[in-house]
Amino acid sequence: MSSNANTPRPAEGWREKIHEVIFEADTRQGRVFDILLMVSIVLSVMTVSLESVDSINSNYGRELNLAEWGFTILFTIEYFLRLISVKKPQRYAFSTFGLIDFISIMPTYLSFVIPNSSSFLVLRSLRLLRAFRVLKLTRYFGEASALKRALHQSRMRIVVFLFAVFIICIISGALLYLVEGESNDGFTSIPQGVYWAIVTLTSTGYGDTVPITPIGKAISVFIMMMGYSLIIVPTGIISTALMQPEPISTQSCPSCSLGGHDYGAKFCKHCGSLL
Amino acid sequence: MSSNANTPRPAEGWREKIHEVIFEADTRQGRVFDILLMVSIVLSVMTVSLESVDSINSNYGRELNLAEWGFTILFTIEYFLRLISVKKPQRYAFSTFGLIDFISIMPTYLSFVIPNSSSFLVLRSLRLLRAFRVLKLTRYFGEASALKRALHQSRMRIVVFLFAVFIICIISGALLYLVEGESNDGFTSIPQGVYWAIVTLTSTGYGDTVPITPIGKAISVFIMMMGYSLIIVPTGIISTALMQPEPISTQSCPSCSLGGHDYGAKFCKHCGSLL
Amino acid sequence: MSSNANTPRPAEGWREKIHEVIFEADTRQGRVFDILLMVSIVLSVMTVSLESVDSINSNYGRELNLAEWGFTILFTIEYFLRLISVKKPQRYAFSTFGLIDFISIMPTYLSFVIPNSSSFLVLRSLRLLRAFRVLKLTRYFGEASALKRALHQSRMRIVVFLFAVFIICIISGALLYLVEGESNDGFTSIPQGVYWAIVTLTSTGYGDTVPITPIGKAISVFIMMMGYSLIIVPTGIISTALMQPEPISTQSCPSCSLGGHDYGAKFCKHCGSLL
Amino acid sequence: MSSNANTPRPAEGWREKIHEVIFEADTRQGRVFDILLMVSIVLSVMTVSLESVDSINSNYGRELNLAEWGFTILFTIEYFLRLISVKKPQRYAFSTFGLIDFISIMPTYLSFVIPNSSSFLVLRSLRLLRAFRVLKLTRYFGEASALKRALHQSRMRIVVFLFAVFIICIISGALLYLVEGESNDGFTSIPQGVYWAIVTLTSTGYGDTVPITPIGKAISVFIMMMGYSLIIVPTGIISTALMQPEPISTQSCPSCSLGGHDYGAKFCKHCGSLL
Repeated sequence: MSSNANTPRPAEGWREKIHEVIFEADTRQGRVFDILLMVSIVLSVMTVSLESVDSINSNYGRELNLAEWGFTILFTIEYFLRLISVKKPQRYAFSTFGLIDFISIMPTYLSFVIPNSSSFLVLRSLRLLRAFRVLKLTRYFGEASALKRALHQSRMRIVVFLFAVFIICIISGALLYLVEGESNDGFTSIPQGVYWAIVTLTSTGYGDTVPITPIGKAISVFIMMMGYSLIIVPTGIISTALMQPEPISTQSCPSCSLGGHDYGAKFCKHCGSLL
Repeated sequence: MSSNANTPRPAEGWREKIHEVIFEADTRQGRVFDILLMVSIVLSVMTVSLESVDSINSNYGRELNLAEWGFTILFTIEYFLRLISVKKPQRYAFSTFGLIDFISIMPTYLSFVIPNSSSFLVLRSLRLLRAFRVLKLTRYFGEASALKRALHQSRMRIVVFLFAVFIICIISGALLYLVEGESNDGFTSIPQGVYWAIVTLTSTGYGDTVPITPIGKAISVFIMMMGYSLIIVPTGIISTALMQPEPISTQSCPSCSLGGHDYGAKFCKHCGSLL
Repeated sequence: MSSNANTPRPAEGWREKIHEVIFEADTRQGRVFDILLMVSIVLSVMTVSLESVDSINSNYGRELNLAEWGFTILFTIEYFLRLISVKKPQRYAFSTFGLIDFISIMPTYLSFVIPNSSSFLVLRSLRLLRAFRVLKLTRYFGEASALKRALHQSRMRIVVFLFAVFIICIISGALLYLVEGESNDGFTSIPQGVYWAIVTLTSTGYGDTVPITPIGKAISVFIMMMGYSLIIVPTGIISTALMQPEPISTQSCPSCSLGGHDYGAKFCKHCGSLL
Repeated sequence: MSSNANTPRPAEGWREKIHEVIFEADTRQGRVFDILLMVSIVLSVMTVSLESVDSINSNYGRELNLAEWGFTILFTIEYFLRLISVKKPQRYAFSTFGLIDFISIMPTYLSFVIPNSSSFLVLRSLRLLRAFRVLKLTRYFGEASALKRALHQSRMRIVVFLFAVFIICIISGALLYLVEGESNDGFTSIPQGVYWAIVTLTSTGYGDTVPITPIGKAISVFIMMMGYSLIIVPTGIISTALMQPEPISTQSCPSCSLGGHDYGAKFCKHCGSLL
């Protein structure tokens, strides 16, 4: 722990060895560990899922419970190994993945104290989030830095777009509540109308609430058409972000210090001096 | 009011102060005002929504009514502050946002005169449109001038595309009315068939009206496939618009006669001479 | 008619005058005619639609019938004006739009001879296709030659893509017929399964036929995911077509006569001789 | 069979003749064979489909059975012709298409031994996969090497994307099982909740399971919105892959040292010297 480096790097001792196997995927052992962990996660989530199926739980409840405890003990051991192998256990414990790791094991122990709560099933299914660690998504998306940058850049615009769509849905929902409210059992309130409007605009279309008056149908047709054509906005947002050439501003003019030059530009477009 | 400038600009007096806080988001007060306004809008729309839920309204009707009056008085004060702080109150009053601001407060007062009309609920929910003002969408989309231009350019084509889709739906709807009409309770008329066709083509698929004859199913399968593949048209429209480079090529360098300069570039990026 | 030019061009006489008004939209009269025609088409299709609504037809049947005859007579006059104003009436009569114009008026006259057939309603609704003539879609899409070319180029690929999707749906449908057939009333045959598979893959999801066995649900989840991700194929097809720079092959090497050179290439990339 | 070449190439004898007709589409006979084969495949799959329709099978069972045997014998002959005409029959027999060809004929013969099994119907419908052979998809997609490469490149990312979507659906499904489980008959278990979440996120929306509690509806609205906006990820993935220029820049001209040459270019397009 008396290391003077911030980045974890191979050093002497068993701690480093464990760290390499558990956190990295460069060595053969590391890869084997990753695969075993992935299999355990998937199997343990399957256990959770099957436990929730009444017919299966009544027949195989004991076996599933046993398996659950097996996985929990396994994950607990892994959790402590992680804790002791990292240089800064506290930082790990409160990192996103550290918390997920903790949530993955806690519910089973808690169910010992507080018995029979189905909310533990859901908490336990959160351990699936650990799969993201094994996936090491950046391994697959890492090289696609252009895509990552584009998605990152588009983040705010997509949120604003969804917010605008949501506002449209609230007003449409209120309108349909006004139009259909009296004759239709489905539009009992504005929130119910908003729910319907979102189901319609996103083209999900459950069919649990449908307009029955001619005016209601006309408005819903309009919402569907809007949902069908609004697709161009997110598509356009991501395309725009992708089309922006690689960050051009890395180079800034030595004399006027303005950026935004094209790749390959030889002269500053703002002041005319050589770049 | 005897200003000789068209654009509102900071001047002496409390009016300018109010204007800055209410209309702009540059100062700290302006930003605080924006956030408070946004919260008020959201809360007031939630009030309207909850009022429409029978079970909530019967229990908390009084509280909701009080809150409603609170928000209305707040918005009324804000409306008058806006009126007196702008240089041209009339132009504000009849601008889009001015009218929305007016519609946001009117229904509550009207409900005093004309009691118990649910259409006021809907009118009141229109105050959500005010959120767009606070969002200042251009703040997020402003820099994406390429996207804005592309969406603007594509406007007409998307409308024509939707119109063409609509024509296809009318003819499909008429066809299914012919095919299914007699054996299916859902296809009672051509408009009903058109409604079904739009629900199908946009892939909403409520399921309130479904084909039951083999021929009807075959046609609807065809419509679904069309809806599934027609997506390339709006996607293509926006992509084409986005791919049209910024209108840059009009200007070419007077000394080296090369083009491709960005908008607003003052110097040739190839040879450095003044454009 | 003794014209020696193939392309219609302004000449002396009333025929040319009529042709200009009816077929072109350059003159003021031509535009007025287009608008009136569009209004007539829309109103006449609305007449047809309303006639199919029982409650409206029983009350306003007489008025709708009158309106129908009015529109038919109008369109008949227009049809004959078109016939006598074009240089080659026969070619017009058998052109796509000529046939549509004919189909627009025929059913009403036929309903005189063969009474009370709802299929005439559908035939009459085909007159909506005439709207495409007025729309002169090329007016809006014409300038977007890149898009038009891309859509044209992608035509075959989209058909093949849809065919491949269709094959997937047939096999999925057969599979679900095998899996669900016995326990589910909805999967009575393979064609029924195929219908369901298409409804599912295109994300329409009527809900008239749904899987009920766990295996059936697992397979349908797989189909949905496929439909959700297959969208990249049509998107990719159109994007590829759009991204292909303007037809580069116009220039072919003078010595080896091979094409496919980039814009601005000075030397043939195949044989090295000057282009 | 004592050929010393790996690639099949035209040689003397009837075998080569058959090979050319059956496997290639260059000659007139080859094209005629392809069309006849396609027609046979489509008709035989239609036979299989119609056989599964009870009302048709009871009336035309004999005829369909006869047709089935006709097609099976035809395909058997074709199979043996393929076997004897290729240079390496074993490699053909165990190739993908060889196995599909075998599966296309086997079930009919097996139904002779093991009577009345509907699973044979499904196996027989697999012969539709043979259509892909006739389609020779590469004929249509071959030239679009950019698209093919992009789809190939995106393969892994799409799988990871779908996996991430799947994880979201499992957690959402577990959540809704927790929220709706007690009051809603549709959410009987976590797997059922996951099924619902996928139906919702992909915007299929059968409507066989719908949320009924306000919290459940709020969560499902969130899932729909996510599904609606997540579309930008696959779109972005394919766009990114398409935008990566052909891997051209590795090779630069030895004399002028400029790059950007197309794959397969033999001469520098800038200076004309040999690459």
